[in-house]
Amino acid sequence: MQITAKEIWTALGAIREKAPVVHNITNYVVMNSTANALLALGASPVMAHAEEEMEEMVGIASSLVINIGTLSPAWVRAMHRAAEAARKRRIPIVLDPVGAGATSYRTRTARELIAAVPPDIIRGNASEVMALLDSRAKTKGVDSSASSDAALEAGRSLHAQCGAAVCISGETDYTIGRGGVIRGRNGHVMMTRVTGLGCTASALCGAFAAVVAEPAVAAAAAMAALGIAGEIAVTRALGPGTLQVHLLDALYLLNPEDVEGYLKIETEG
Amino acid sequence: MQITAKEIWTALGAIREKAPVVHNITNYVVMNSTANALLALGASPVMAHAEEEMEEMVGIASSLVINIGTLSPAWVRAMHRAAEAARKRRIPIVLDPVGAGATSYRTRTARELIAAVPPDIIRGNASEVMALLDSRAKTKGVDSSASSDAALEAGRSLHAQCGAAVCISGETDYTIGRGGVIRGRNGHVMMTRVTGLGCTASALCGAFAAVVAEPAVAAAAAMAALGIAGEIAVTRALGPGTLQVHLLDALYLLNPEDVEGYLKIETEG
Amino acid sequence: MQITAKEIWTALGAIREKAPVVHNITNYVVMNSTANALLALGASPVMAHAEEEMEEMVGIASSLVINIGTLSPAWVRAMHRAAEAARKRRIPIVLDPVGAGATSYRTRTARELIAAVPPDIIRGNASEVMALLDSRAKTKGVDSSASSDAALEAGRSLHAQCGAAVCISGETDYTIGRGGVIRGRNGHVMMTRVTGLGCTASALCGAFAAVVAEPAVAAAAAMAALGIAGEIAVTRALGPGTLQVHLLDALYLLNPEDVEGYLKIETEG
Repeated sequence: MQITAKEIWTALGAIREKAPVVHNITNYVVMNSTANALLALGASPVMAHAEEEMEEMVGIASSLVINIGTLSPAWVRAMHRAAEAARKRRIPIVLDPVGAGATSYRTRTARELIAAVPPDIIRGNASEVMALLDSRAKTKGVDSSASSDAALEAGRSLHAQCGAAVCISGETDYTIGRGGVIRGRNGHVMMTRVTGLGCTASALCGAFAAVVAEPAVAAAAAMAALGIAGEIAVTRALGPGTLQVHLLDALYLLNPEDVEGYLKIETEG
Repeated sequence: MQITAKEIWTALGAIREKAPVVHNITNYVVMNSTANALLALGASPVMAHAEEEMEEMVGIASSLVINIGTLSPAWVRAMHRAAEAARKRRIPIVLDPVGAGATSYRTRTARELIAAVPPDIIRGNASEVMALLDSRAKTKGVDSSASSDAALEAGRSLHAQCGAAVCISGETDYTIGRGGVIRGRNGHVMMTRVTGLGCTASALCGAFAAVVAEPAVAAAAAMAALGIAGEIAVTRALGPGTLQVHLLDALYLLNPEDVEGYLKIETEG
Repeated sequence: MQITAKEIWTALGAIREKAPVVHNITNYVVMNSTANALLALGASPVMAHAEEEMEEMVGIASSLVINIGTLSPAWVRAMHRAAEAARKRRIPIVLDPVGAGATSYRTRTARELIAAVPPDIIRGNASEVMALLDSRAKTKGVDSSASSDAALEAGRSLHAQCGAAVCISGETDYTIGRGGVIRGRNGHVMMTRVTGLGCTASALCGAFAAVVAEPAVAAAAAMAALGIAGEIAVTRALGPGTLQVHLLDALYLLNPEDVEGYLKIETEG
């Protein structure tokens, strides 16, 4: 599996040209910031969660992003309905299992969503990905200081279990797909001081999945685009406030030279 | 019907002096950004949606803004209660039918709100306004690439049907009221890359309607103020991130010279 | 009771070192901005409201912040469950009674929360604090133009009634605790044009309460940190848009010299 600056740039160009509708059922904290990131990238975000309109809203979307960051029973029902509708229409589904492992409600909800309608992409941090494995695998340990290696192993198992491309974000972003593992190293530590950039990564996965056939490539391209925009933004930022603002500008202004110059990615397998 | 820079400036001065309480039942995506826009303009935003407190909260407000961007049945009930309370108190009501036409739930909800308590101002984009007409009118076609002329015709019909001033935002903003049509041309295309600026326009309509008697004039003044602030902000912005920030500053700093110098408005009828 | 720049700086250092998990049940308007403020300060925000996960989520937190800004019955139930869980674990509880006095639903909810599980810190504006007193005390008058002196008297009564440190924010911030009254004078009037900075103050109270034993000292330190960051941000801001952004940067960059140089605080009793 190979992924080049040119492929990422081509995908970004397709997003800007087609402005795919990305339907998000996401958490209250990041609704505004992820909508803005999708708009800055060139996509058309829709945020909707009412059960009453899930089928119709999915019906006009090019991809679906489900994020369990602020759960409640009614929203979980809407997530299931949306996922079923997306599967029927054969549009890609991205799942962000925010806080899986932190509470059993989140872990259970994320697992049930995966079991009901396996998503095309699962994007989470190391602890979240490890928490999604079944109990036998879980005995390997689930905590937020999980090592990258352990998470990578969990990611491989999760990919084997459900077929989804599994993207584990961290200092190195691992994306595990049919073609092997993609290691991306873009981004900056100051990004961890802005709320919801993990959720933003998942939203961007939705935009890239709308225009790229292979889920693992779409996820790795999304992580690279966000990471590169973050590195550019850091050069103009004094702290997380200015970083957040300049990150949106950088997504909007991203050009082939930036992608070529900043991209740090390796593939294996 | 005439509307001048002086009238807009006088209205803005009244907002800054009186700081009218604008009660918003709005969507999760824009609650923060519309509250900030109202504060920057000089108004006092309240965001509240619990049925339990609708009458009391409307009771301290100078105008009510209902935005159906992220619907659910409990919120729709609260919207009806708030609208009834606002009508009893004779304070102006603004309706933003976000996504009407995209799903039948939204179209139905918006129409039912209009039928139950006709608002003073309806502000939406071309597709949304066209979707609000009854089915006979609807056969003229409802889609997001609706031409401005078709939307203008729909706006006239909607105004005739329910009496509300109808404001159709786009490259040209049309406001249809008792005195004819106001055409505003302020704003900048980069504003479409910031989420919720349509919702912000509706929120500002609420602020202007609190101090201007004629709904169409209030709506056109709100569109002009936002558009002018946007044009000023673009001169300081590199992309949608910095645009959003400078837009709030520009609303806060707006002065008579800006309004006079930037205003692009024509009236007919 | 004494509180010095060194104590505030030491507390801030502890937050940055330990990154305490602050569990927020807060309103939709400020979820993003308060999470960002906590991250900029150095804490680890969690925003969660589902009854299904309250005990577990509180179980990983170092403090709990309850903010009634956008209420509904299900959320109120979750607030009670979270407060009970926090009390069992003996972690500090901060209550922000947003809009108490504006509607009876908010006044009643805030009073019931205080009666069920007395919080360690209550932070509100003058009107809100006065509204929390029982009806006899209330006859002293409850309105938003309440004088600081009247609010201070109400704050003393409320502290005597429930034992919480009571922080009344305004041009002067009063914090009433076991050791007397702390008067803080940091901050800038432009901060009132950014939505949710009162809620941000309460969130920061949660972060400081996680590392400072005495609630009144924690609250006063939080108010000072936010006020100082605001004053620094104003020097770089043109209006409320740039202020909000630079405020996050200033919280992130706050250093001992800033605290020493800007701190305006007096203690009595």
